[in-house]
Amino acid sequence: MLINYSKILENAVNEIAKLPGIGRRTALRLALHLVNAETVEVETLAQALTELKSSLKVCKHCFAISDNDICEICANPKRNANVICVVQDIRDMIAIENTGQFTGVYHVLGGVISPVDGIGPSQLKLQELFHRIETNPVEEVILALPSTAEGDTTNFYIYKHCTGKIPKISLLARGVGVGEELEYINEVTLGRSIITRISFETQYENALR
Amino acid sequence: MLINYSKILENAVNEIAKLPGIGRRTALRLALHLVNAETVEVETLAQALTELKSSLKVCKHCFAISDNDICEICANPKRNANVICVVQDIRDMIAIENTGQFTGVYHVLGGVISPVDGIGPSQLKLQELFHRIETNPVEEVILALPSTAEGDTTNFYIYKHCTGKIPKISLLARGVGVGEELEYINEVTLGRSIITRISFETQYENALR
Repeated sequence: MLINYSKILENAVNEIAKLPGIGRRTALRLALHLVNAETVEVETLAQALTELKSSLKVCKHCFAISDNDICEICANPKRNANVICVVQDIRDMIAIENTGQFTGVYHVLGGVISPVDGIGPSQLKLQELFHRIETNPVEEVILALPSTAEGDTTNFYIYKHCTGKIPKISLLARGVGVGEELEYINEVTLGRSIITRISFETQYENALR
Repeated sequence: MLINYSKILENAVNEIAKLPGIGRRTALRLALHLVNAETVEVETLAQALTELKSSLKVCKHCFAISDNDICEICANPKRNANVICVVQDIRDMIAIENTGQFTGVYHVLGGVISPVDGIGPSQLKLQELFHRIETNPVEEVILALPSTAEGDTTNFYIYKHCTGKIPKISLLARGVGVGEELEYINEVTLGRSIITRISFETQYENALR
């Protein structure tokens, strides 16, 4: 779809369509929405986007993007800095943070080991993780990487380097999702959930108290 | 999904999620893409968006958005200014323009008459269309409005005002789309395409030459 009659519109559509998952048709729809929007709304959007580059930093401890040199989570004295949850990216960190169930801190690797994509250990924040473990009294490392071959590889890589150096290395529980129906769950997940079954008392700890 | 640990990221996600059809999850994905993008790329995008409001104008003739007071199509001496194609919005205009089959000019109404949505004739560029027709030697008006009850209403409204004043008022042909299979076409369209059937010679005019 060409918009060769307006260079300004064409230019905006081209720029918007560079965003991941946005085609030219959607880009045109968004551009025309902005044409009809209030000037202040468009300026606020443009400034918010610019600030993503000009103002955001990377936390020196956990490598999450952050407003300051140390992110709010790492700087929070209420968080347990001795329990580190390892995630591949900030989206997974936000997902865990939104559960409200984790009171430790994070370590953002920036991906997982994937030889197919040319991503080796040196391109991830792995040395930084090992350095953190060696220089802090870390009690537990929780590996919250994706449940894929690459995630497994990275899990083992971290395990090999950390085992013996910290008291506990754990993984996210894999199993039947809350609200999921058994007949629709894939066999691997269902099989694992039988092998790694938990006691009734553990599951309903709070209800039994 | 809350991102309460970074105000800059939260702000950008909020602004992006105001765009139509973009949820918070997509907004976060786009924001994180920009965080990792080159600074110049983000600045170019922000500037392109700002220019949509600061630099775009509305063509004085056809009411399409335009880089100048008169749009490139209306200003093009090769276009036949006496054949006016009436469209509801600029997206439909761009769609027709992309066929490369139309050499006339456009008139962008800004919508169609829709009492349910509170859109009456006075909110559309209808008087401007009638003025154009009265002050120019217009030969034909092509009504390319959507094939809906509202489109039909608007078609009739324009027809009533223009009939007798211009030689020809026409509609886009409705019928079987190129490449469509008959069994999947809705009955109304298929029925119309039989009633308004065209001669073999018209369809294959070029091939028979």
